[in-house]
Amino acid sequence: VNDAPEMLAIVGATIIDGNGGQPINDGVILIEGKRIAAVGDRSIPIPPQAKRIGAGGRFVIPGLMAPHQYLVDGAVPATTILYEGRYDEVAIEAAQLALRGGVTTVFDAWGPRDALIKARTAINQGRVSAARIYLCGNWVGTGGPYSEDMRPQFRGAVSESFAARIDALWEANIGLELTRMSPEEVRQSVRRYVESGIDFLSYPVNVHRDGAYQYIVFSPRVQQVIVEEGHHAGLPVQAIFATTGEGIDLAVHAGADIVLPVPHAGRPMPADTVALVAQRKAPLVCLSFPPDHHEWYRQQYPASSPFLKFLEPQDLDERALIRVGAMLLSGRCGHVHSADTMNSHKDAEPPGGELLLGEGHAMGLRSLQERGMKPMDALLAATRNIARAFQVDKDLGTLERGKFADLVILDRNPLENAEHYRSIHLVMKEGKVIDRDALPSQRLLTAPPVAAE
Amino acid sequence: VNDAPEMLAIVGATIIDGNGGQPINDGVILIEGKRIAAVGDRSIPIPPQAKRIGAGGRFVIPGLMAPHQYLVDGAVPATTILYEGRYDEVAIEAAQLALRGGVTTVFDAWGPRDALIKARTAINQGRVSAARIYLCGNWVGTGGPYSEDMRPQFRGAVSESFAARIDALWEANIGLELTRMSPEEVRQSVRRYVESGIDFLSYPVNVHRDGAYQYIVFSPRVQQVIVEEGHHAGLPVQAIFATTGEGIDLAVHAGADIVLPVPHAGRPMPADTVALVAQRKAPLVCLSFPPDHHEWYRQQYPASSPFLKFLEPQDLDERALIRVGAMLLSGRCGHVHSADTMNSHKDAEPPGGELLLGEGHAMGLRSLQERGMKPMDALLAATRNIARAFQVDKDLGTLERGKFADLVILDRNPLENAEHYRSIHLVMKEGKVIDRDALPSQRLLTAPPVAAE
Amino acid sequence: VNDAPEMLAIVGATIIDGNGGQPINDGVILIEGKRIAAVGDRSIPIPPQAKRIGAGGRFVIPGLMAPHQYLVDGAVPATTILYEGRYDEVAIEAAQLALRGGVTTVFDAWGPRDALIKARTAINQGRVSAARIYLCGNWVGTGGPYSEDMRPQFRGAVSESFAARIDALWEANIGLELTRMSPEEVRQSVRRYVESGIDFLSYPVNVHRDGAYQYIVFSPRVQQVIVEEGHHAGLPVQAIFATTGEGIDLAVHAGADIVLPVPHAGRPMPADTVALVAQRKAPLVCLSFPPDHHEWYRQQYPASSPFLKFLEPQDLDERALIRVGAMLLSGRCGHVHSADTMNSHKDAEPPGGELLLGEGHAMGLRSLQERGMKPMDALLAATRNIARAFQVDKDLGTLERGKFADLVILDRNPLENAEHYRSIHLVMKEGKVIDRDALPSQRLLTAPPVAAE
Amino acid sequence: VNDAPEMLAIVGATIIDGNGGQPINDGVILIEGKRIAAVGDRSIPIPPQAKRIGAGGRFVIPGLMAPHQYLVDGAVPATTILYEGRYDEVAIEAAQLALRGGVTTVFDAWGPRDALIKARTAINQGRVSAARIYLCGNWVGTGGPYSEDMRPQFRGAVSESFAARIDALWEANIGLELTRMSPEEVRQSVRRYVESGIDFLSYPVNVHRDGAYQYIVFSPRVQQVIVEEGHHAGLPVQAIFATTGEGIDLAVHAGADIVLPVPHAGRPMPADTVALVAQRKAPLVCLSFPPDHHEWYRQQYPASSPFLKFLEPQDLDERALIRVGAMLLSGRCGHVHSADTMNSHKDAEPPGGELLLGEGHAMGLRSLQERGMKPMDALLAATRNIARAFQVDKDLGTLERGKFADLVILDRNPLENAEHYRSIHLVMKEGKVIDRDALPSQRLLTAPPVAAE
Repeated sequence: VNDAPEMLAIVGATIIDGNGGQPINDGVILIEGKRIAAVGDRSIPIPPQAKRIGAGGRFVIPGLMAPHQYLVDGAVPATTILYEGRYDEVAIEAAQLALRGGVTTVFDAWGPRDALIKARTAINQGRVSAARIYLCGNWVGTGGPYSEDMRPQFRGAVSESFAARIDALWEANIGLELTRMSPEEVRQSVRRYVESGIDFLSYPVNVHRDGAYQYIVFSPRVQQVIVEEGHHAGLPVQAIFATTGEGIDLAVHAGADIVLPVPHAGRPMPADTVALVAQRKAPLVCLSFPPDHHEWYRQQYPASSPFLKFLEPQDLDERALIRVGAMLLSGRCGHVHSADTMNSHKDAEPPGGELLLGEGHAMGLRSLQERGMKPMDALLAATRNIARAFQVDKDLGTLERGKFADLVILDRNPLENAEHYRSIHLVMKEGKVIDRDALPSQRLLTAPPVAAE
Repeated sequence: VNDAPEMLAIVGATIIDGNGGQPINDGVILIEGKRIAAVGDRSIPIPPQAKRIGAGGRFVIPGLMAPHQYLVDGAVPATTILYEGRYDEVAIEAAQLALRGGVTTVFDAWGPRDALIKARTAINQGRVSAARIYLCGNWVGTGGPYSEDMRPQFRGAVSESFAARIDALWEANIGLELTRMSPEEVRQSVRRYVESGIDFLSYPVNVHRDGAYQYIVFSPRVQQVIVEEGHHAGLPVQAIFATTGEGIDLAVHAGADIVLPVPHAGRPMPADTVALVAQRKAPLVCLSFPPDHHEWYRQQYPASSPFLKFLEPQDLDERALIRVGAMLLSGRCGHVHSADTMNSHKDAEPPGGELLLGEGHAMGLRSLQERGMKPMDALLAATRNIARAFQVDKDLGTLERGKFADLVILDRNPLENAEHYRSIHLVMKEGKVIDRDALPSQRLLTAPPVAAE
Repeated sequence: VNDAPEMLAIVGATIIDGNGGQPINDGVILIEGKRIAAVGDRSIPIPPQAKRIGAGGRFVIPGLMAPHQYLVDGAVPATTILYEGRYDEVAIEAAQLALRGGVTTVFDAWGPRDALIKARTAINQGRVSAARIYLCGNWVGTGGPYSEDMRPQFRGAVSESFAARIDALWEANIGLELTRMSPEEVRQSVRRYVESGIDFLSYPVNVHRDGAYQYIVFSPRVQQVIVEEGHHAGLPVQAIFATTGEGIDLAVHAGADIVLPVPHAGRPMPADTVALVAQRKAPLVCLSFPPDHHEWYRQQYPASSPFLKFLEPQDLDERALIRVGAMLLSGRCGHVHSADTMNSHKDAEPPGGELLLGEGHAMGLRSLQERGMKPMDALLAATRNIARAFQVDKDLGTLERGKFADLVILDRNPLENAEHYRSIHLVMKEGKVIDRDALPSQRLLTAPPVAAE
Repeated sequence: VNDAPEMLAIVGATIIDGNGGQPINDGVILIEGKRIAAVGDRSIPIPPQAKRIGAGGRFVIPGLMAPHQYLVDGAVPATTILYEGRYDEVAIEAAQLALRGGVTTVFDAWGPRDALIKARTAINQGRVSAARIYLCGNWVGTGGPYSEDMRPQFRGAVSESFAARIDALWEANIGLELTRMSPEEVRQSVRRYVESGIDFLSYPVNVHRDGAYQYIVFSPRVQQVIVEEGHHAGLPVQAIFATTGEGIDLAVHAGADIVLPVPHAGRPMPADTVALVAQRKAPLVCLSFPPDHHEWYRQQYPASSPFLKFLEPQDLDERALIRVGAMLLSGRCGHVHSADTMNSHKDAEPPGGELLLGEGHAMGLRSLQERGMKPMDALLAATRNIARAFQVDKDLGTLERGKFADLVILDRNPLENAEHYRSIHLVMKEGKVIDRDALPSQRLLTAPPVAAE
């Protein structure tokens, strides 16, 4: 019996290692078991027992990372109703779609904590093949799917008994009530929560309600309490839904490790704010729509549509942040929607705008480039920046000796054209070549609608 | 091989045959195959090969009939979402609950036609053991579950694509549009519909919308067209949701065979209307709540509740109709609700008021008796009257030679106390003793809620 | 003292007398007191004491009539709030605007009965100069301004106490409750109402609620009761808001004298209905928008707008009715709106589409002509047809000996171009030349908005 | 001609001078013109020319002060509609009701700035007799009456044109948009605003929206900007609508001079917060309902009513604040409502709970006493505390030499029973005896409803 880990060698490709340097032409990546043993040019010796993967003329990049996903979308009642008790399977289906598209790591931004942990465990134990999941569960102080924070208008359509049960799953004891608590009470709740198996901690900066987006959820001292408790437990802390300059400023000063700015207050970031995040190198998740999609929305929606007022600040913010070299994480990677949802959205989205997870990252990266980001920086925004921000760069984010062998082999050069991110030849996760055609292994959300009887 | 049908003899019971006459003490019912061969006293000769069912001290009544059920409740989004493609199974579960409770025949008042036909076929072919189903599908001119007629407030909670699909299933091409059509156009639509496999035809008299209950859906001449087309196809026609004296009058004069009066306009039937239905012997479905439940509602609901204004006219109407000997069909038999719905209704219904189908008929019959109906007439209201009204009395409704052997053996005399309808010893449908403990064979709606993960 | 009535002679004009015949060139109208003494050519002897009004080159037409106005618009909360206790003054202002525009008679279609009577009295007694008012008050069985039938969405914005008081003023004891009554109860209520000083009786055929327009308010026998009671009191009866062929058919067969068809059910009149109203010569009020306004709406409103679905049937109905020579009453004459309402409607109406009462009739008549009506017939639709339909043709509607001297002198020939109805040279009512510049004598609704402090 | 100011002497009363010390029995207050010349016992020499007011057996207290009124209630559409252009008259009517009830000074908490200034001027110039008005106009960053912050549900009931005009009057260029601005932009807007004639500056701490009460409007640094600008202009700054411990803490640390805490977040103040405000002696406006009213609400409202959840924290907060000797300002003084509003509230308020301005202060003071406040402290909460908090104690708040002669003579001792505040014998403002029977001089809001015609 040979217990030695399997060895693989990817040979001949142009290697873009995710560190931003010059790509290595005709390179070699040597993989031993789950990890990379060496990266370099042809001078690297390839042991004879290593299985060779010829990649001449192709391009190797680190496995892509999605910093902001909803693997189980609580905002769609049909999802919470149809798959109650099986949300882990829904999450796995989503993570499989991601992996099929070259996204080897997904950060879940809001979901049912325990089901996500169950999915994570199944994936980490190798029982299913899917993208790696990191999760935060609920946002501190935020209500569940049927609460005032999310879709209260749907509460009447489901039974009270169901709504209460689902909300409790999502809220995980850190729901809306925390917004009314004293700092010390918040501390106690968060302290219990950070020990419950999450990978990072998220809290909202501004209020997640239509027409109230500019208000502030937590006082600065409560924000500090939350960040302290996250850090005390060794977790990175994400300040989510920051809609104003003041919100971003508060988050940065509270010590948040990642910030998700959104333009929902309808105004661009003040110059001071842009300067602050640039100077601090604060990682910002960026949910970028391409300029042509902006244009489409402007033509399709009535001028009075509230949706339109987000477009201009979003465009300005992204251009300003790219100009000053802020640390951006490319977050637009697609959704996991049912066929019914896709059909119903059809007329509300630009052609090609409603993409499944795993299909959307090229759009997000194209969008950043069309607003001024250099191709190499875009690649970093989808790989190394994310790994660093979430503090998993010891293992992930670049092609370097010792890190997990998460990588994608592309037929065409992604630095030439962001669309080439779609030209996937091979996906590898932890040293294993993924059978992409077999993903997802079970269709739930993405199954075709029931045929009428 | 013996091809002769199996013979059974129920021996020694008091037989209440459903014709309203004096019960037969120590009687004998002889059954040959699916049908009754003889009913009478001990003088009936029992062939030796007949299997004997001793029923001394017990009471035999015809199988109960439910004239107004929703086997698949489209008004509950979770039901339409969770069981899409399986509504036939939902209907079967409901019909099994009915049968377990002694209700051998159910008239479905509104539902997805094709799924109900599928369920009916499965039952009629003996593939599952369940109450016999008769169905009307949609009401002429009425929208589906998510339409303005039913639960438009839930439409936003499901995708447009889903809502349209479900509405179409229910509407079956005789939806809301018919209310805007000319008589001839209505005729063509109804003509196609009556050939589609339904057992009876239903159309609404008054408008099924909150605050508009007193208005009239179809002109008299359109009502006549509908009735003509139903009759032309050999189907009885039900005029449903008649909320005013004018509505009932129009339905009777249009030639409807059955009328469902409801007190939603908030006023009791005028004396003229009561006299008309009595004189015509028009069968009326009666959804009676017991007086003590009325009292409970009056105490629990705020005086301004619109619900309360239905109680007094309902009470007065039932008393008046019973007084004049109108032909009533007892329609209160229970619902088929999920555990979530039951939990959520808990505080809104009187103790014991929210009953499953198969458990509720005793309540309905008690209610009629407490408003003045004689016990024997109440029994007829749950059996023979229904069979006659729906024109299935050749086979059903009484214990008579030649009819189907649908019957219930009770431990205690139902003419003494309506609660004794619950003292079921044995249920027989078409000559087969039902294994009540095995029903329902599959739990769908009535399953316990998913345990939180 | 000379008690003889004043004599006037209009000399030299082309007289279009409203009977549809050839106009009289160079004609003479002799007026004695309030009434016309003679109409004809120059052969008519003009008494020396008659005051002459030279009208050579001009055109005389009967005073225009508006068959469908809301002199006090209860649907606008600011109106009911600001002018409580002064609705008679509001009505007078409106009737003055009408008169200024050549509309000498107005039929008020819905309003606060007692205030309208007060206004009518003031006008009839000559205390104010304004168009003659005929009124129906409330529609039988219809709720007031803040009721479910009209603007329930505004009820919360005013105090309950106020809403109840205003609704009662409008309902005048024949409110919503009548829709739930027996025929005999309706008869008693209507009998009291017809004696209360109204000039004609109105009842709705179809339901005046968004999304329920196709339903029927009263059973045929109740409609007959209403018509009988109106006729018994000597009043013409108007069947208002008939949205379907069935509705119009019911109204005609109930014996209604005037029908207001509206296309709110979204389908054109069936051919049978068109034939029926043509054959019966049933007077139909026609609220016509010009084709170019239709076009404007189609371009401005989203395709899904419910408003749009009325346009096509309206267009088709008008064309069909004109083709068969139905008896139409031109009802589009403008509104009486405040400056605030006008400002707020600005973008929702086509240029020139939002006109004040007295300014709009040319638009209505142009609209009918553009759909095929002959100019002379259009003139009849604004004069004689209305007088006949409302049974006031003994005194009004044409320029004939013995009738009231209500007339308009135009500078240009209205039969050449409907816009020429605007070229008003002089308005006379009951033999008095109107000082148009003095109208309205008091600005209420039409006053400019309050200047900000 | 004698230019010397008029002299008055109030002789013989028990003087409770508002400083909290022992009352002076059989005292003398000498008034010269508008101001107090001396206060003391009988040893004070009374000049012969002084007019004597005998007050033996009676009690003199400083003129009462109302720290939180809406003289023009923008939340009632009928008020904004009916009195547009005359809001100054509405404010004067309200100030006259106040004065009639012994309230000589009113702080208007939210209203149309320019109309309030106009009213203030009329009062200060002596053109009308009414309570002295101090005003803040709008709250920084808050929308007008029809905006999302106040009564958006009423916007549809008025024309857009009107709503926009009224909102602009209230907002006075410091509306909702300020909540989205950068600190510097806020500074510029507030700087212009503080120069516009206001007496104090108000800004909201928490969000004034149902279900979002716990969120924070402005970041700490923006709060500081607001306070700085107020102070820079010499104005006291009020932090209004502080619903949480965090909110109060932020307001105190921002340097607000007065805080209005409200229990709308549904939780009592944390102990830390209570300690903070006690230690800082931060003046808190207290809108206290008596315990028996609390009890009445608990019995009348359904247990699920959101209203109820405010009661317990309010009760607990008041008891805690009184216990620690916080500086409270008694703010419950009654409303100015129309007869319609009063009628419509009748069933929603406890008997005696809906009081007019000038009638309500006894209730507010009784309420504080029933929660533990000493009678003398209650008197200070309605006089000196308010004057100090709003920095007008140089002229107002106590009966001291040099201050304005604002005072009330009561028949009975208010320190014995708070109800005795109603036993008004005489009200004096700036040395003038008020003719209370002549107030209000013009009935607008408080006029009886229009009689039906």
